Amino acid sequence: MNMNQQMQKQITLKQRPVGMPKMDDFDFIDTPIGTTSAGEVLIRTAYISVDPYLRGRMQDTKSYIAPFELNKVITSGVIGQVVDSKSESFSKGDVVLGNLGWQEYSVVNEKEIKKIDKNLAPVTANLSIIGMTGLTAYFGLLDIAKPKSGETVVVSGAAGAVGSTVGQIAKIKGTRVIGIAGTDEKCQYLLNELGFDEAINYKKEDVPTALAKACPEGIDIYFDNVGGTISDAVFPLLNKFARIPVCGAISSYNDVEVDMGPRVQTALIKTSALMKGFTLGDYSDRIGEGYSALATWLNEGKLKYEETIVEGFDHVIDAFLDLFKGANLGKQLVKVSDID
Amino acid sequence: MNMNQQMQKQITLKQRPVGMPKMDDFDFIDTPIGTTSAGEVLIRTAYISVDPYLRGRMQDTKSYIAPFELNKVITSGVIGQVVDSKSESFSKGDVVLGNLGWQEYSVVNEKEIKKIDKNLAPVTANLSIIGMTGLTAYFGLLDIAKPKSGETVVVSGAAGAVGSTVGQIAKIKGTRVIGIAGTDEKCQYLLNELGFDEAINYKKEDVPTALAKACPEGIDIYFDNVGGTISDAVFPLLNKFARIPVCGAISSYNDVEVDMGPRVQTALIKTSALMKGFTLGDYSDRIGEGYSALATWLNEGKLKYEETIVEGFDHVIDAFLDLFKGANLGKQLVKVSDID
Repeated sequence: MNMNQQMQKQITLKQRPVGMPKMDDFDFIDTPIGTTSAGEVLIRTAYISVDPYLRGRMQDTKSYIAPFELNKVITSGVIGQVVDSKSESFSKGDVVLGNLGWQEYSVVNEKEIKKIDKNLAPVTANLSIIGMTGLTAYFGLLDIAKPKSGETVVVSGAAGAVGSTVGQIAKIKGTRVIGIAGTDEKCQYLLNELGFDEAINYKKEDVPTALAKACPEGIDIYFDNVGGTISDAVFPLLNKFARIPVCGAISSYNDVEVDMGPRVQTALIKTSALMKGFTLGDYSDRIGEGYSALATWLNEGKLKYEETIVEGFDHVIDAFLDLFKGANLGKQLVKVSDID
Repeated sequence: MNMNQQMQKQITLKQRPVGMPKMDDFDFIDTPIGTTSAGEVLIRTAYISVDPYLRGRMQDTKSYIAPFELNKVITSGVIGQVVDSKSESFSKGDVVLGNLGWQEYSVVNEKEIKKIDKNLAPVTANLSIIGMTGLTAYFGLLDIAKPKSGETVVVSGAAGAVGSTVGQIAKIKGTRVIGIAGTDEKCQYLLNELGFDEAINYKKEDVPTALAKACPEGIDIYFDNVGGTISDAVFPLLNKFARIPVCGAISSYNDVEVDMGPRVQTALIKTSALMKGFTLGDYSDRIGEGYSALATWLNEGKLKYEETIVEGFDHVIDAFLDLFKGANLGKQLVKVSDID
């Protein structure tokens, strides 16, 4: 197959967003697919993961991961299928996972991708429950918060891909779990499908009041996906030796002004509480452990997951922007092509 | 000796302070010294420790330690001398340490006090460098922050009893130490006496600018004694896997309004940083370890300490209020009587 002459669509960062990103911040450009050299593989993009943390990479600020460059392709978790291989490790038809470009095809070195076992779970699960978001939930909750049976766990962004997994693992560990989400439908999903003990609709309820009512014995663990006023409401309810894995702060990602709130120092001192930021990259040497545990729970029926799948490469940006509207239940993905 | 008829002075909490405490919030009352029963000891107060954390106990809020009760004697670390003993463990003349009342004499159970070795160090060191503040520095820095040679350590409240010990232990561990204090005299003390690498006078310098200049390789550890805008300036300079023991927030202890500042979640995520509140009580089972280490360093000449000693029981409240004016260098104490 000679696809090097063929053109494909690619999404680049045209300008750094100010506030909420908009379609104009991105370019859809036509670019050659390219050719494979020794050790390389040509992949047809099947599913693209869109994630809140990508908003941070669109800023030109120091962070745990380099910012996206202007006029370069945006990258994220991608599942694709090998259509041509000059690698001994991959064959045509293999389904693979990698951090790849937002484009219809990618030519990549064999070291940048790993093969997916199609028989273990639906392939998309490798971008969600047994992939980045599931692993993020696993390590943040178990390594930082270390839940003990009988403790009270509060999760914000609870109907999202990370939050819904956190709550279920917390239930597996014998805790009492309170989820905070933004629609009644999401709250019902948490209660009826995932077995959460309580769910708070932060758009309808007064969060400090609802949290105090839902946590009569205080809060031992707060898994923070959102930051902002929802997190502010947690601090006065912390128990002695509380733990707060700080995973995301989606409420502030599009802020233009400095994100101001009550300072947390006094609450931390009063309770000897721990707050720790983290990203999945901190656990790169333990991915195998997390993957095994999640796959086992999934196959035992102890973990459920949802995906919100938008169809068509033209809708990648729409799907990304939907994250900030809270439109997604579970993992937000874009389907670009079928897997054979 | 029959002192039960004799009267003594005692300081009680008359009303809960609003904002900065004032003399009117306290009462100096006359009360009988009382009598010793079996297992009890009569102690003449020699030195009273006044500490910022006591401000928190004057509020009626849930914390790691119960609030002071109105019209009851205030308590803190006290060194005294046994003047009468009905305990087999203590003899007249013994110098003892305990959490005792702000009064001239105390009748206490033998279990509430421990004997001080007068030969190891000046007795007041048991309220400072080898006592509560030294131990607080020891556990917060070594157990939470775990300094590694070559790292950059920033300490706020650096000329205070805790901060000055933190900086010296950090130097023993081979780190680069930057202290933040409120007078040029204190800064000179940190640089010339304690061996700090840099000192910033937060009342004269722009802290964000001065910190960035003093920490060209970023900040690995921030030992937080003060909270507020000084701490705000640290977060943008944190390195990956930074650690922040949160020991005190003196800048906010007298606040009437909610203490507002930039939320820290995003900075913690970007750097996978850890923030942990603590109090010495969290380490009650390791006091012996800390005491031994501090006493060894002290006797080896590796630790220096200062005390600001105010004379006279009538000045206990003045000495306490001085803490919030930053008047003290090192440990603030009140001398009530001589030790024979």
